[in-house]
Amino acid sequence: MSSYHPLTEAEAVEIAKSIPNVLQPDQEIVCREIGDGNLNLVFHVRQPSTGASLILKQALPYAKVVGESWPLTLDRSRIESEALQIQAKLAPGLVPAVYRYDADLALTVMEDLSDHVIMRRGLIEGGIYPKFAEHISEFMARTLFFTSDLGMNQQEKKLLSKSFVNPELCKITEDLIFDDPYTNSPNNSFDEHLREEAQALWSDTALHLEVALLRDKFLTSAQALLHGDLHTGSIFITPESTKVIDPEFAYFGPMGFDIGAVIGNLLLNYASQEHWSSDEASRRERRAYLLGTVRDVWNLFESKFRKIWDENVIDRMARTEGYQDHYVRRLLQDTVGFAGCKMVRRIVGLSHVADIDTIPNPAVRAKAQRIALSIGTSMIKQNRDTRSIDEIIDMADTAVHESRS
Amino acid sequence: MSSYHPLTEAEAVEIAKSIPNVLQPDQEIVCREIGDGNLNLVFHVRQPSTGASLILKQALPYAKVVGESWPLTLDRSRIESEALQIQAKLAPGLVPAVYRYDADLALTVMEDLSDHVIMRRGLIEGGIYPKFAEHISEFMARTLFFTSDLGMNQQEKKLLSKSFVNPELCKITEDLIFDDPYTNSPNNSFDEHLREEAQALWSDTALHLEVALLRDKFLTSAQALLHGDLHTGSIFITPESTKVIDPEFAYFGPMGFDIGAVIGNLLLNYASQEHWSSDEASRRERRAYLLGTVRDVWNLFESKFRKIWDENVIDRMARTEGYQDHYVRRLLQDTVGFAGCKMVRRIVGLSHVADIDTIPNPAVRAKAQRIALSIGTSMIKQNRDTRSIDEIIDMADTAVHESRS
Repeated sequence: MSSYHPLTEAEAVEIAKSIPNVLQPDQEIVCREIGDGNLNLVFHVRQPSTGASLILKQALPYAKVVGESWPLTLDRSRIESEALQIQAKLAPGLVPAVYRYDADLALTVMEDLSDHVIMRRGLIEGGIYPKFAEHISEFMARTLFFTSDLGMNQQEKKLLSKSFVNPELCKITEDLIFDDPYTNSPNNSFDEHLREEAQALWSDTALHLEVALLRDKFLTSAQALLHGDLHTGSIFITPESTKVIDPEFAYFGPMGFDIGAVIGNLLLNYASQEHWSSDEASRRERRAYLLGTVRDVWNLFESKFRKIWDENVIDRMARTEGYQDHYVRRLLQDTVGFAGCKMVRRIVGLSHVADIDTIPNPAVRAKAQRIALSIGTSMIKQNRDTRSIDEIIDMADTAVHESRS
Repeated sequence: MSSYHPLTEAEAVEIAKSIPNVLQPDQEIVCREIGDGNLNLVFHVRQPSTGASLILKQALPYAKVVGESWPLTLDRSRIESEALQIQAKLAPGLVPAVYRYDADLALTVMEDLSDHVIMRRGLIEGGIYPKFAEHISEFMARTLFFTSDLGMNQQEKKLLSKSFVNPELCKITEDLIFDDPYTNSPNNSFDEHLREEAQALWSDTALHLEVALLRDKFLTSAQALLHGDLHTGSIFITPESTKVIDPEFAYFGPMGFDIGAVIGNLLLNYASQEHWSSDEASRRERRAYLLGTVRDVWNLFESKFRKIWDENVIDRMARTEGYQDHYVRRLLQDTVGFAGCKMVRRIVGLSHVADIDTIPNPAVRAKAQRIALSIGTSMIKQNRDTRSIDEIIDMADTAVHESRS
């Protein structure tokens, strides 16, 4: 079993039985492969008699997106399991526990979270998650601070960064987020009714300049160990609990990329309320909830990050008066810029989001898409001038108002 | 001979003989150890009959500075030889040729440059190097551009960066350049007549903020493969030829750190002319030459870098109108900030420069030191506002004029 091959369900059960203290080996075990088959096999192994269960996630040596298939390193499985273990230590309870990692099989055995739902799905269905902002800000403040030069031994950080050199998965981001949407690339995919908007993106030099600067940051700024793909599809949630999953894009990059992913995806759901809310009153209420969550995510992140900094900073020069304010302001600006990039690419780029793509009525979908593009491009263009998260709330409000005229 | 031990002269000769096509094995060979014994052994192996010669440089497992000794990784020898080979390929003729690298012995066998002088010594002695700006700008423009995300495959760059993770030598820079000079550190060393100036550095919060920002860039900005220690003591020179040596501090960092090292060290020599020029007229002439060289180094760097960019950029987004201007402006600003840090640390920090420290008259030395501190602190404080290299020339002029009042 030690050389790489895609596991069968029977093999998955045998491996699951060998994990201590989870399943009773003499009682019935049920196994189901629940992955989407595009990137990974995911086995859900469960014991009906005890309710015990676990997940086996095995990387496949290729990626399938929209019918195409290209080879993809199995090393992403090591990166994912190592990132999960670092995150578990820094942000206890906010990631699934890892029971075992098998490098040869590119296999991670981990805690089953099937009592949670994928947050993107939960938001589409109108879920309310009162603890989310608290949890995700805690996750980000702690994982980002303590893997940065502010909170980690600076020589150990350099050595750790070697383990998270992640060229193949970074390239996916570099292409799909920071390049394709701004040119007539064959990788792009958008509804024909958006052709004019797409072409406007391709010819907007002022927008391209900001994207180029953000791309440069993504390529060169090794601020902290990022999750690297922190959208609402990478979060398992209940009203009481938040678990961040799938950090296979982890690498040392700019902190704002993670925070921006959360905020950008909340705003994509905000844009999609054109459809998901049944009437104007519920739409207003839902949008207020989502914007409140955006504001809380940033504000809680900022206050936690500052508190952690005050109590734990290891860099003497970082204690300089005014430096923390400067650092946090730039972090907000990066967050806003990256959030905008995340929104734009989900409308015109290769990979979309269900919040918007599953809206059946084309006219309603177009309206949601235009709101998302309007917020996204505004955030990108104004990122370096942003001083407060309230400016983003205003942009989101404005985009909705303008979509009515 | 394969396990590490400091070589004897006899062993050095045997190794030298084994390098093909340099020495005649049957004729007399002379060997002399010419290193300063602080970091490396340096054997000069020469054949009087033919004039052929070469250098064996072996890293010692410790560093000695001002009497103290601390362990230092032998891996710096690998980093140095790999950096030299990359630089030789990118900037042919501007680094010594490497004949062999022996990892076990931490030994690099390379071209002998004893027909050159160390540029710091040459400048102190009043040397004129009309090709220097041309050569060093070529070296920097090519090595920096082609190891950055602008000019190198972005995935290969990430992999290459693993080989240049250099925590021990980076820590020396982080401490001695970006921390100690700004606090009452036991590592500092300065003439007692500078106590007031040193204390002013320790309490200047506006200065500390800029140093903290530059330190953050040094820690996190993986722009390109730097030389990492590009002062005039790392350059062998003649009026016709320039050779950059000793890249043991090489790592992926901000480009401006290399350019700033060159400019900062030219300005340290400029400050030292209080002593080295014999009268006011020759002092004015010498300073004009040095400031002209500073201006040329930047201007030639900028024009070469832009030309290389126009002809070779591999990043589609970097072709965005306005992006190159923005990038080059930030590069100038970084250069100015790092140059300032390099100057300040050579006056009050652990490691000084002969240009200034060998001025025998304390009053004259003090004047030179104050000119250097004035230029250095001005550059640090104004780095983010700099728009032209002429502003730096003005700062240098002003510092001299003010030193007379």
